[in-house]
Amino acid sequence: MTSTWADEALTRDAFLGGRVWLRQPRRGYRAGTDPVLLAAAVEAEPGQSVLDIGCGAGAALLCLGARVPGLALAGVELQPGYADLARRNAAENGLEAEIHAADLRALPATLKARRFDHVISNPPYFDRAHSRPGPVAAKETAFADGMPLPDWIDAMARRVAPLGRLTLIQRAERLPEIIAALHGRMGGIAVQPVVSRAGRIAERVIVSARQSGRGAFRLASPLVMHEGRQHLSDAEDFTPEAMKILRYGGKLRIAS
Amino acid sequence: MTSTWADEALTRDAFLGGRVWLRQPRRGYRAGTDPVLLAAAVEAEPGQSVLDIGCGAGAALLCLGARVPGLALAGVELQPGYADLARRNAAENGLEAEIHAADLRALPATLKARRFDHVISNPPYFDRAHSRPGPVAAKETAFADGMPLPDWIDAMARRVAPLGRLTLIQRAERLPEIIAALHGRMGGIAVQPVVSRAGRIAERVIVSARQSGRGAFRLASPLVMHEGRQHLSDAEDFTPEAMKILRYGGKLRIAS
Repeated sequence: MTSTWADEALTRDAFLGGRVWLRQPRRGYRAGTDPVLLAAAVEAEPGQSVLDIGCGAGAALLCLGARVPGLALAGVELQPGYADLARRNAAENGLEAEIHAADLRALPATLKARRFDHVISNPPYFDRAHSRPGPVAAKETAFADGMPLPDWIDAMARRVAPLGRLTLIQRAERLPEIIAALHGRMGGIAVQPVVSRAGRIAERVIVSARQSGRGAFRLASPLVMHEGRQHLSDAEDFTPEAMKILRYGGKLRIAS
Repeated sequence: MTSTWADEALTRDAFLGGRVWLRQPRRGYRAGTDPVLLAAAVEAEPGQSVLDIGCGAGAALLCLGARVPGLALAGVELQPGYADLARRNAAENGLEAEIHAADLRALPATLKARRFDHVISNPPYFDRAHSRPGPVAAKETAFADGMPLPDWIDAMARRVAPLGRLTLIQRAERLPEIIAALHGRMGGIAVQPVVSRAGRIAERVIVSARQSGRGAFRLASPLVMHEGRQHLSDAEDFTPEAMKILRYGGKLRIAS
């Protein structure tokens, strides 16, 4: 796939009800609701630093930057084309963000020398053991590149400041791997399941953990994305809780 | 604490709306809803074998035996007094159950030689690292006896038949340890959270896993035990879903 796109190969899409606009390629990986949920779950305070590992066109980083003023935003993205888009999207949204086109296994020295208050990620969903890539598997081929999820989480953990936090969103099926990677290494692990409809099994999990301190593990009640028991029409049917986050820039507090 | 009780030191309590009656000591560990939920979550078929590790006075084993006819029921219990009660409770409920008074680390040869279609347990909730025993800590001192939860799960896994399943209920805080113990060793891990009220963090998790086969990890939507957002009175306020299980002997299907 190409690493840069002509403007006509890009769409411009509204996030958080138009508080953030992102240019994204028509074909290839496109941000959906997952990076928005991820950004909503990060309990960042003004003035803190954030690193997004695998930031794509900047969806999570810029949604977080739009919600919490005064953050120092940084992103790493393997594909130079997406890194370029993330820089352009940051500028067009009036946000400063330091974006590095780099492999997670070979971070630039300027990043390796620093720790961040928040390290966030929406790691690739491709799982060689359990699934086959679809016809368009841009994110998978681009980001995963054979890197196992535990290694991805390890790379995140290394960049978290002593009092900082790691937050990621992933397919719920991968929760055992995520927990195995965090258990005994990080503290205060919290899991926020996301279900498409009430009563369903979890599709996504948002997992958060602290670099230090123990704190009990917490499993929150699920965030329900859509109203009703089944999909009846293509009209939007988000629940009020989902709308609060996706359209109005609300926080997703991993429950107490 | 004594290992046997005079009849006047025992109560006789109804489970499953009176389908099962259990004699239990007035003081010391007494079965609440947890063993009933555990029994409801076991997908046993008539004719299969079940081993309950740490069976206490028999609550889970006998609730399961009352729901599914024709099971071969076995239990292991460290405290001889509770093992005696479990035998008596089985007989009084018209169920056959083979109960062994034994330490989990030194099972009798007759158990070590066998594998079971279902191995179930409500392991002790005492966690030396995170909690202090209360004034009455009978179950903790009796069963835990310094045995870490991963070892307990290991002992369970060793008794599961090749096509069999392990099912346990535990405090939700311990889920990382449970998953770390099962991940990569057993397949088809499924987690059923149990919350006291809608929207709360999980209090309990029921975790099930298969001895063989991979199957994707599943995280179900929580079973909500009580109606309303908070505790308003001491009157029973179970949800219809909880009532179905606790009073009418319904199944708890870890969601699809």
